[in-house]
Amino acid sequence: MHAYRSHTCADLNKSNVGDTVRLSGWVHRIRDHGGVLFIDLRDHYGITQVIADGDSPVFAELEKVRSEWCIRIDGNVLARDESLVNPNLPTGEIEVFIRDLEVLGAADELPLIVFGDQEYPEETRLRYRYLDLRREVMQQSMTLRSDVVASIRRRMWDKGFREYQTPIITASSPEGARDFLVPSRLHPGKFYALPQAPQQFKQLIMASGFDKYFQIAPCFRDEDPRADRSPTDFYQLDMEMSFVTQQDVFDTIAPVLAGIFEEFGGDKTVDAPANWPQISYKDAALWYGTDKPDLRNPIKMQVVSEHFAGSGFAIFAKLLEQDGTQIRAIPAPGGGSRKFCDRMNKFAQSEGLPGMGYIFWREGVDGMEAAGPLAKNIGPERTEAIRQQLNLGVGDAAFFLGGKPKAFEGVAGKARTVIGEELKLTDPDRFAFAWIVDFPIYEADEETGAIDFEHNPFSMPQGGMDTLNGDPLAVKGYQYDLACNGYELVSGAIRNHKPEIMLKAFELAGYGADEVKNRFGALFQAFHYGAPPHGGCAAGIDRIVMLLAEQANIREVIMFPMNQRAEDLMMNAPSDPANEQLRELSLRVIEQD
Amino acid sequence: MHAYRSHTCADLNKSNVGDTVRLSGWVHRIRDHGGVLFIDLRDHYGITQVIADGDSPVFAELEKVRSEWCIRIDGNVLARDESLVNPNLPTGEIEVFIRDLEVLGAADELPLIVFGDQEYPEETRLRYRYLDLRREVMQQSMTLRSDVVASIRRRMWDKGFREYQTPIITASSPEGARDFLVPSRLHPGKFYALPQAPQQFKQLIMASGFDKYFQIAPCFRDEDPRADRSPTDFYQLDMEMSFVTQQDVFDTIAPVLAGIFEEFGGDKTVDAPANWPQISYKDAALWYGTDKPDLRNPIKMQVVSEHFAGSGFAIFAKLLEQDGTQIRAIPAPGGGSRKFCDRMNKFAQSEGLPGMGYIFWREGVDGMEAAGPLAKNIGPERTEAIRQQLNLGVGDAAFFLGGKPKAFEGVAGKARTVIGEELKLTDPDRFAFAWIVDFPIYEADEETGAIDFEHNPFSMPQGGMDTLNGDPLAVKGYQYDLACNGYELVSGAIRNHKPEIMLKAFELAGYGADEVKNRFGALFQAFHYGAPPHGGCAAGIDRIVMLLAEQANIREVIMFPMNQRAEDLMMNAPSDPANEQLRELSLRVIEQD
Repeated sequence: MHAYRSHTCADLNKSNVGDTVRLSGWVHRIRDHGGVLFIDLRDHYGITQVIADGDSPVFAELEKVRSEWCIRIDGNVLARDESLVNPNLPTGEIEVFIRDLEVLGAADELPLIVFGDQEYPEETRLRYRYLDLRREVMQQSMTLRSDVVASIRRRMWDKGFREYQTPIITASSPEGARDFLVPSRLHPGKFYALPQAPQQFKQLIMASGFDKYFQIAPCFRDEDPRADRSPTDFYQLDMEMSFVTQQDVFDTIAPVLAGIFEEFGGDKTVDAPANWPQISYKDAALWYGTDKPDLRNPIKMQVVSEHFAGSGFAIFAKLLEQDGTQIRAIPAPGGGSRKFCDRMNKFAQSEGLPGMGYIFWREGVDGMEAAGPLAKNIGPERTEAIRQQLNLGVGDAAFFLGGKPKAFEGVAGKARTVIGEELKLTDPDRFAFAWIVDFPIYEADEETGAIDFEHNPFSMPQGGMDTLNGDPLAVKGYQYDLACNGYELVSGAIRNHKPEIMLKAFELAGYGADEVKNRFGALFQAFHYGAPPHGGCAAGIDRIVMLLAEQANIREVIMFPMNQRAEDLMMNAPSDPANEQLRELSLRVIEQD
Repeated sequence: MHAYRSHTCADLNKSNVGDTVRLSGWVHRIRDHGGVLFIDLRDHYGITQVIADGDSPVFAELEKVRSEWCIRIDGNVLARDESLVNPNLPTGEIEVFIRDLEVLGAADELPLIVFGDQEYPEETRLRYRYLDLRREVMQQSMTLRSDVVASIRRRMWDKGFREYQTPIITASSPEGARDFLVPSRLHPGKFYALPQAPQQFKQLIMASGFDKYFQIAPCFRDEDPRADRSPTDFYQLDMEMSFVTQQDVFDTIAPVLAGIFEEFGGDKTVDAPANWPQISYKDAALWYGTDKPDLRNPIKMQVVSEHFAGSGFAIFAKLLEQDGTQIRAIPAPGGGSRKFCDRMNKFAQSEGLPGMGYIFWREGVDGMEAAGPLAKNIGPERTEAIRQQLNLGVGDAAFFLGGKPKAFEGVAGKARTVIGEELKLTDPDRFAFAWIVDFPIYEADEETGAIDFEHNPFSMPQGGMDTLNGDPLAVKGYQYDLACNGYELVSGAIRNHKPEIMLKAFELAGYGADEVKNRFGALFQAFHYGAPPHGGCAAGIDRIVMLLAEQANIREVIMFPMNQRAEDLMMNAPSDPANEQLRELSLRVIEQD
């Protein structure tokens, strides 16, 4: 017989009754029923009930066994009494009577109980991660993550992509975030950097004549702590293709992601890629108040300025006399009660606005009537025009926000989310996707008016060189995001592969050729040797797994995560270097005051 | 029609004749046959001949096109004249007459010609890697690497393994090599390290209750330059299993590797895993002079001390009077000429030995006779006894080395290799594998006699705790390598998962409990909470691909490698940090003298 097991703890069933078997695993739970010991023996695959009484030659030893000891037992498979069959357990028809025992690994007193759902402080969970990971939910999340990544790979291969590994110890890639630096020993005083993303490498791979690249790529950013991201690194599905348009990228990646959500999304419905709308950045801001809209929520905001211009509602009427102002409505079907409207008004105040005007429609004495102070101020005709524009009726409400859109769009978007959730308009059992397109290449600094890149400088401007001779703020890029349930899941672009357009694009943002060569030297030079048009995108792996695992904290889907202070409590990182190490690196630490 | 291509450059054949097509790719070669332009248009998939003459509306523009320009053409597919069909090209039956042209990316004068086999200095190749990678051999090596890694993943999944990612920014892992350090910004003066291997993490994954782990894992070592390894990082197939014996690990990984070599090894034969011998470390040293023997070479060395003890060959006879000395023979079937024997003697001298004694057998006047000075010195009886032991005959030779085995084994191994190759005994068309087992856990320092770990301290001693109470130098570990064609392809062990055995093992090497906690704190602590027996191995990906691609330089199978001075010439790494970066990291560079 094998040294440790003839079966896993998920294998045995009625057909094994009478067999002599060997199992290894962890003592999940022990119950002592007066002279009869019941042990739930657990391994990665499942649980088997193993039992012993005084007839077992190892009963005395068994009585010493404690939770989370790792043991090996030999025994006979017995059928359970009909009344004791556990239909929730694959092995629930049988139990194993223990004849022999070997303690493979005993356990000290546990800082964290594996069995059950007891909550522990994150410090404890991370310090004893190997115990935390034994819990069922963590086993599930980690295998889910592994299976998702495996499925992504299979799907990308099936589409003719090959995975190529790009350097991890490399040069600084000034892409907005802070680099992690790695001091060079052979070149004292010089440093490598860990890549913030393989952006330049994947573009260089296209310039090298490879047609379809992908990578499950680690990305490193020295970020300040935030709840929903790792302070050190994260993984992305990074992909790039040559000789493609924006639509080609969509048509390639959409079925991969839809397939993943269908495969691992349980009973939730997944919008078919053919139905993923393409919404311009501008429309997304107008309709949803964000460039990552949650389309499970059917609410779409509308501009209703005309109904307030010159109206009796002085605040909005005055506001509209200023340049660049607007009034927008958030329709709230089913929100037609003063109580709900007041609650939403309070929400707006909690977000720092003076409040949020509203109208709601109810059944009055003479049929439908509009209620709320706003309705009174603007009068019945304007009120009715608004109702008709928003297609609302009795029992519905509408909320209004005014000013310069940039100033209120964020809050409007949040209000839309809260309204959708509170009124149960948002479908919790759906994955809803939308491409956000036509991002502007540039933005103007609000104070100085100076033009700078809105996002990153890699995207091809729509219209190419010609468009760069007009108003920079009107230039849109072949740049896109994919939103899913309110999260940005994917970001990408068709790249600017023409050196002369690259120079011009940087010039508009106030940078000279030196800046281009400095920041993207290899890429810029490669573009001088016959660069193909190319584009691609990157999808956040951690984010995808979080959505599928229904977890809100990134640390729940990472095997050995850092805590929020960027420390690994289990491994004790970071730690003090040896003097010898610093000397080899020609470095000295500056004392802190 | 699609913006860039209706077909790839490998798609078109006779069935497309008459079609209007669009192709994009690079100008591989241009020939101007007096008014007719022939262009080999190349993309990642293949080459298509596209042509034009004065009848083409874009002929004038085409005449400006140069090598490695990236272009898009429209044209009609024409059948080639029977006499001009190129059977070596999938598209060799057709050519495309160019009607329209778009220059997608022009090229400056090339520092490196893509077409043909011209050699360039490595500096040039690495600086312009994107051009170097366009060459056919590089495209093949990179796709081979990608396909090998993909196949490894498929095979591991099929065996029930899941891939789990382990941290890249983590703690120092004192495993023998030098760590790359990463300064922490949030914790001034403290440093992370990049993992030399995920050794501790994979063992922690087993302690966490996961049963089968693998990872295509990046490993980071700050190594001094050497031709056959990267000075910064390399990839390994890292795997670990719980509740297994050494044989289980062999039975798991052997078919994966054999499958890879069969799938990608071309016409070479691959030894079936059932025939991979398990050779003890001691026997490997004796028979092959190395722990990574090349079994394509049938030569097996033998101890022949008895024939020289007290013989007339004074050098060996005297040598044997010292403790721990031996005489070993390298049989050389077919090496029976003075010329060959003298050449091998010179080889030994070039390796720093005074020489290598030999005997060879030839047809003499009275039948077979033994030649060479050694034969004369020891006389016919001893010579004949040696011949019989080595099973040699006319036309064969034997070489002899003597002394303390450690002192000459290395040269003996090299001599065996040279003999095998020169006599064409080594089969160049075979992948020959051997497990090397029973590695000693400890070795004694030659000068001080102090006991230290021979390899690494993770392996379970054979015999467990009991064996540690005897002679340390007699303790063997459940530790193994897989050799293939003279390379170490895999290394692994059944791990020491018992804290008390771990403490004892360290104690024998002169280390206290502090050292264990210091070096492997997380692992040592995890072993106190019910650790399962586990073991695994790691296989070198770069090495496997090098063997399959028949390349001797690791940089030929890495997309963007460092040069031997650990510099990335394309990306300009390492480089000077900004003062601001150093300030944020609380670091100062010490000026060099």
